[in-house]
Formats: sequence, structure tokens, C-alpha cells
Amino acid sequence: MDILIKNTYLISISEKREKIEKNVDILISGDKIKKIGRNIKSTGKEKIIDATNKIVMPGLINTHSHIAMSIFRETVDGYNMQQWLEEKIWPMEEKLMPKDIYYATYLSAIEMVRSGCTTINDMYYMAEESIKAVEEVGVRLQTTRTLMSATDDSEERMEQLKKLVEENKEKDLITINAGIHGLYTTKEEDLKKYLEFAKKEGLRVNMHFCENSQEVEDIKKAYKVKSPVDVIEKYFTEYNTILAHSVKLTDEEIKRLGKYKNISVSHCPVSNLKLGCGIAKIQKMVEENINVSLGTDGQGSGSNLDMFETMKYTALLQKGVNEDAVYMPAYEAMKMATINGAKALGLENEIGSIEENKKADLIIIDMESEQMQPVNDIISDIVYNAKGSNVETTIINGNIVMENRNLKCKEEIFIYNKCKEIINRIKE
Amino acid sequence: MDILIKNTYLISISEKREKIEKNVDILISGDKIKKIGRNIKSTGKEKIIDATNKIVMPGLINTHSHIAMSIFRETVDGYNMQQWLEEKIWPMEEKLMPKDIYYATYLSAIEMVRSGCTTINDMYYMAEESIKAVEEVGVRLQTTRTLMSATDDSEERMEQLKKLVEENKEKDLITINAGIHGLYTTKEEDLKKYLEFAKKEGLRVNMHFCENSQEVEDIKKAYKVKSPVDVIEKYFTEYNTILAHSVKLTDEEIKRLGKYKNISVSHCPVSNLKLGCGIAKIQKMVEENINVSLGTDGQGSGSNLDMFETMKYTALLQKGVNEDAVYMPAYEAMKMATINGAKALGLENEIGSIEENKKADLIIIDMESEQMQPVNDIISDIVYNAKGSNVETTIINGNIVMENRNLKCKEEIFIYNKCKEIINRIKE
Repeated sequence: MDILIKNTYLISISEKREKIEKNVDILISGDKIKKIGRNIKSTGKEKIIDATNKIVMPGLINTHSHIAMSIFRETVDGYNMQQWLEEKIWPMEEKLMPKDIYYATYLSAIEMVRSGCTTINDMYYMAEESIKAVEEVGVRLQTTRTLMSATDDSEERMEQLKKLVEENKEKDLITINAGIHGLYTTKEEDLKKYLEFAKKEGLRVNMHFCENSQEVEDIKKAYKVKSPVDVIEKYFTEYNTILAHSVKLTDEEIKRLGKYKNISVSHCPVSNLKLGCGIAKIQKMVEENINVSLGTDGQGSGSNLDMFETMKYTALLQKGVNEDAVYMPAYEAMKMATINGAKALGLENEIGSIEENKKADLIIIDMESEQMQPVNDIISDIVYNAKGSNVETTIINGNIVMENRNLKCKEEIFIYNKCKEIINRIKE
Repeated sequence: MDILIKNTYLISISEKREKIEKNVDILISGDKIKKIGRNIKSTGKEKIIDATNKIVMPGLINTHSHIAMSIFRETVDGYNMQQWLEEKIWPMEEKLMPKDIYYATYLSAIEMVRSGCTTINDMYYMAEESIKAVEEVGVRLQTTRTLMSATDDSEERMEQLKKLVEENKEKDLITINAGIHGLYTTKEEDLKKYLEFAKKEGLRVNMHFCENSQEVEDIKKAYKVKSPVDVIEKYFTEYNTILAHSVKLTDEEIKRLGKYKNISVSHCPVSNLKLGCGIAKIQKMVEENINVSLGTDGQGSGSNLDMFETMKYTALLQKGVNEDAVYMPAYEAMKMATINGAKALGLENEIGSIEENKKADLIIIDMESEQMQPVNDIISDIVYNAKGSNVETTIINGNIVMENRNLKCKEEIFIYNKCKEIINRIKE
């Protein structure tokens, strides 16, 4: 059924429109935004949503996560990254079974919808199961079969990746990319083969990069380079690539990366703090014209998938670290969580802003909340005060996946209980 | 009516009890916690609250704020502290009328109750109006008549403060302290007179301190000292004092402050980031045994009063800045937001932990939320994933001020509209 949203404040994140428009109607037909205007007449056949005093903005886009890690939420606190992976996470992951991935991802898809995130870029095992879960809930997913030489047979991984690409190529909501765990966990020969395969299949590339100081040293040693960016310049410049984290880049390295328009960064501030990695120099990246998008990382380190929180951390940390309040205005953080995310995923013509003929991925936010009142500046109020729970309605690909906080999928309590069973079994 | 809370998980923050206890009952009689135990029998006369699978913890304590600034929420972004005050805030404050303070504070009291904060330390003008508002909502308040030589006649301020003390000395929920805006805005002669008055009246002292680099320089110049801590050592060591912010203290200065057990710090991480001040060295303060409590600051800079968010920023920032995940465990942040806050306010025998014979200031948290499931570690889950909106019930001084998210005070929408009118008038 077509949808007609009436009388909203619109934050379109479109350069062709005003930042905020008042009294706007939006007509959604099929999976697309058909018309944006004032006083759009209903044919009587559309579902009408009255959004008076509410905000419509693009669905948020999370460009780095491991969403089956929902079950590992708060299993570990006080561990630095390497120790966290080796002593805690990898041993638990060895016990994961396909059905676990399905339920754990299902929980994350619920989290996404309830906090206004409509697209996520995932990196995990057994993507077939994740895909099944997100398709049931109805969120947009980019995913992969990640290569990690330490544990994987690279030929086998490429076969699995090829199968994933084949199975999903006709799907509207699913895109497959080529995932590399990190340079420090991938042998140079495997990297080369995997990248050649990605080129042949026309896949985008995803990789953890310079998350902490130790990783930088490990990359230098493994690849015999002076800077991790040397490896990027040698192998990645032809690829549309997302470098997750990029916490430990120097100003000079950021400048070098800025030359490559096809390379984006996924900034994950909460996870980077929690694992003791540090604070990425996002302000410098923006100055060097790098496309910075935002991610939550998996819940094992990022705690949850709330992109509103991620926007706030992004804006505030740059003000604090640079000791200058002008850095990272609220609107800049909002663009990172929407259109920049779409660019990072190669979907900027489909999603990331609200424009006619783009896909209908959008959220309706209720501002009648004590932490947002009185509303003096809508954009700042959303970035600094909105929580995921202020999202009232979530629409993805023209489908209403949550309306007035009610989901259309499996009972949440059923999913919570399944996830509890899984993590209890794994911890045993 | 007495209240019997049944079958909860208890986080008491009491050193005499386990960190987390299961299947606990809590009997509240009058304003006090009468009994904590298992299977407490009801006399049939208590109001029973079933808290199965829920958490009871002490109400959160916010040790630094300016709560009538709720109406200034997001009026300004991108301004550094001094410019923010001089160009934006002070001109707006000049237009404030008594009734404005009442409604603006009322909004903040609603924010507090809905986000599980039961006590706040306020610093603002026209405290009579603030007191009226918080008494109607039923929250615990410590407040003052702040001295600021730049604009005030110090004799007049002391008279007003004396009157406040007189009017409120019999009240259970209200305590008056002596507030000094800051050393950089207070002449030394006024400071001396005001402190003498505080001593005579037996008042605790509150002051902004070393919020940014400029302030440190201004204090050095105004008081002709090498370090702002010289002024503290000269005038404040006999007083029970809260130094708000203390962002720009060196390790050496922190060590010096650590000698005075009557001096607490109120750490306001969100406001400090937003105004480009920096990140306080809280980890160092803890090592030097300074009592660190938490504050949100006023909404003009701190955006909102959500103490859950403040706990999370506190824990995460220290991990990130020190590049070590062991710093500031979740439980440490939780103590800062409860018992350390009570100590800072001189109320550690009354509130800040759940113990028999203490005042019944406590909150019930619902964990059945997608961002908190599955629950692997209750304390980490609360610090990293709970939002104010996960608080289901808030009890202050034995009174249920919010039950199942329903407040017992004036209609929220009425207060929102009043606040909107006020800020629109001021902005005109």
C-alpha cells in the first residue's frame, strides 16, 4: 500500500533542499519516494501517517558492525582489544552454531529498527543465517564472508563468498562485499588473491584498519612497511573500500588517504573508547575530504547499535579533544550517519537522503519527550538528546517495519529468550 | 502507605553487601528503608511492587547543574565556554523572570524523575522558584544563592542566602549551600566575606573550578598565584566543598587536592566536551583518593540531565584517553553517580546507597529492552546500555514520584508548552 506522510518537519539531508522544511508531505509508492511537497492530495488509497510536530529524516546507516555479537553484549569489560579478542571473544565464537547466528542477528535487527537504523554493514561468519534474520525483520544489509588467514583457508573463503554473491544478487535489501579482517591477520599472498577475486566480481571491500597502536606495529612488521597506508596505496586504491576505525592514523597518513575518493572511513567512537584504542582524528579526516561514515561496531565492544548515541559521541569527542567547540557541528555528524554512510556503501543514489525517486528508507521522530523539550534547534536536539527510543516509526524500502513503536516481526521476548539460551550454553 | 518491593535484583552500592543480590525484598516505611531481606511478609497494608527480573538501585545523584537552563537546551552549538556565556547565555538570562525559573525547573524535575535521578545540586538565580517546582514534583534538591562579583552586590547576595537558609532549614528535601560562581568572576574580598558567612551558617560550598585553560590563566592573574590550587589551599581547606569540572588540573595539582578529604570534584563530561573544555583526569583523581561525583551541568551546555549517559561517558572517556580499557570500570562510574554524589553533598548517611534506615531514594529498572538483552553483566548493562527511559519507577523520600513511567505531577505537555512560550519570549 502507498503511504502518505502528512505535515512533517523534513530533514532531507539533500543538498538540493533546505536543511529543515516545515509542513511537508511525502508520498511513498512501492519501495520509492514518489513525491515530496506541500499539500499532496490523497487518492484515498494511501495509508496516511499524520506527522504533525514530528520529524522525518533518512534512516540511519551503520557502516561497521558484527551484529551476531549481540549475544556477547557486556560479557567482557576492562579488556584491551587484543586480549579481548584472543582470550574472550574468539573462544566463545568457536562454539557458535548457524542457528545462533540467526537469533543473535534477529535481536540486532530488532535493535536497529527500534533505534531508527535502516541499513547496516555487517562482517561476520555464516552470513546465510544473518541474511535470513534481517530479511524477516526487513532491514537493509551489506555483508560478506570475511577473510582471516590466521584461521581460514583462503580458497575456501573465496568459494563461500562467491556462493553468497550468487545467492543474493537479485535481492533488493542485500548486497555482498569482500571483507578482510585486517592486514595484521591476513597474509599478503592471501590478500592479493582475495582482492583479485573482488575485482573480478566487482565487489566493494571492507577491512578493520589501524584500530590501536599494537595493530599499527603488527602491520609494519608483517608487510615490511613504514606506514600501514603504504599497504593501502599498494593494494587498495582501485577498490571502493571502507576502512573501519582508522584510530591510529597520523596527520600525514590522513592526508595521504584523502587523495583516494573511493576510500571511506567508518568511525566507531564508542567501541574505540571501550577497548582502550583511543579517539580517531575525525576532524582532520574531514579537512582532508575523506568520506567519514559512522559505525557502532559489534555489541561485544560497542555495547549496542544506537546510532543516535554514535552521532553524539562523534560530535562531542572532536570538540573535547580539539578543545574547540566549533568542531564537528551536529549537522556534520548527522550527514556522517546518513548520506556519508550511503556513499561508503556505494548506495548514495538509493538511500542516505530523502529525495524523489530514492528508496523509501526513513524514520519518524517524536520530539514530545522531556529530554528534547523545548525544541530550540531541531538538528542539535536530535544529535544531542534523541535516543533510539524517540523513533516512533521506521520505514525501509517502502515497508513500515515499526509503527508507533510496534514491530511487525517475531515477538521480541521470544528472541530475547533464545539469545539468553545461546549465550548461557556458550558460557558453560 | 508503606511499600514492599518484592523479588528484585538489588544493587545496593553498600560496602556491607554483595554487589548484586538476587530475589531481594525491600520494605519502605515512611521516608525510610525499613528492611532488606528475603521473603519479607506483607502485613496486607503495604503497596506491593513486583520487581521480578527487574533491578533496584539507589536513585542517581547529580552534583552539578543549573536546572532552570532547561529552556536554553540547544539554543547554542559551536561556541566555546567564555563566548557561550558572554554572547549567548548571560544576555538571555537577563530576561528571566521568577515564573520562568519555576516552569523551567519543573521541566528539569520531570527530566530527573523520568531518568532515575532523585537528587540534584543546583546553582542558579531565584532559588525560591526552583524550590517551589521541585517540591511539587518531589525531588531532593541542594541549592544556593550564587555569588558572582562581576554582576552582584555581595552583601545583598549574603542577605538573600541567609533568607534562603532560614526559609528551608526544616525541610526534608531541601538543603541550602553557599555557591560561588568561580574564582575568575569573584573578587578576593567578596570571596573572603562570603566564606566567613558560610562558616558561620555551617554551609557547604560549591564552585566552578578550572573548567578550561582560559579560566586557569584568569585565576592566576586575578589572585596572583602560580596555580589555582594555591587559592583552594589558602581559603577552602576548612570547607566541605564541591569543585565542579576541574578539567584543567595537572597531575601535581590533583595530588595536592587529594590531601583534603572534604573537597570533592563534580565531573561533568558531556558539558566539558560540548563547550570545548577538554576531558578531566578522573582516573588520576581516583588514584589520589579524591571523591569524584558526577554532574550533567545545565542543559545549556550539558544538553540533558540523563545521568545514565553521564556514567557511560565517564567510564568510556577514561578508557579512551588513557588508551587502556581497565580504567574506570562500570561499577566505579556507578558509585560516582550514587554514593560519591551523596558524600559530595554531605548526605552519605541519608542517601546514595540502599541500606536499612537510610532514606528511601531508589529506582526500579526494567531490563526487558532490546538494547540490554541478553543480560550478561547487570552492572555493565546498566552503565553502557540503560537510558533514562529504562527507569520504570522512581521513589524519593519514600514517595512514588513515577510508577510504570507515569508521573504524579502536572501534565508534561502543559510544562513543555510553558517552557516553549518562555524561550520564545526571551529569544525575541
